[in-house]
Amino acid sequence: MADPVETDSELYSVVFENERVRVLRYHDLPGQSTHPHAHPDSVMITLSSFERRLVHGGRTVDVSIPAGEVRWLDAQEHAGHNIGSTDTLTVFVELKESAPRTSEAVLGPRI
Amino acid sequence: MADPVETDSELYSVVFENERVRVLRYHDLPGQSTHPHAHPDSVMITLSSFERRLVHGGRTVDVSIPAGEVRWLDAQEHAGHNIGSTDTLTVFVELKESAPRTSEAVLGPRI
Repeated sequence: MADPVETDSELYSVVFENERVRVLRYHDLPGQSTHPHAHPDSVMITLSSFERRLVHGGRTVDVSIPAGEVRWLDAQEHAGHNIGSTDTLTVFVELKESAPRTSEAVLGPRI
Repeated sequence: MADPVETDSELYSVVFENERVRVLRYHDLPGQSTHPHAHPDSVMITLSSFERRLVHGGRTVDVSIPAGEVRWLDAQEHAGHNIGSTDTLTVFVELKESAPRTSEAVLGPRI
């Protein structure tokens, strides 16, 4: 599964990462595209409005989203193309396996 | 643990909720305050800049954050006061226990 931070390091950057999440920031200009990459289950927050074409396995979906929106992204692979006239600026909160809520919940070794 | 959607239903609203996350939107005006409430481990995304005073158990912390920032919020209780001259507009991605990655990981009953 291709990590977008590796496939498109000029467009995706890691804001921070801990045990439960990795947060990415994405910023592109009109006309720019990403290479095919994979997202885990994520929450996407739009900081700009944008129009994008998502492509994977012969399927194409065009999306148009205003700024300040929040969307759930099921784990998926795609390549994205900025087909609008504005920059795309978004934040992805990528979900990892969560930490146990209490130490009592832990039984065996962690690693 | 007081749910902010219940303690301050005019300020906090649920954007969506699924098995892994609950997403809240918060919007207040200068001078407004929340009642004491609890947050689970969360990612906060600021959609406006703001200045706030957080109070809990005799401790006070003032925070000033620009728009478009992403912050990790360890599970905590507090009350918040808008001490600035701008609205506060933020999104909270609250983390739940995550879903198992594969059905093989499940052993006993779910409920």
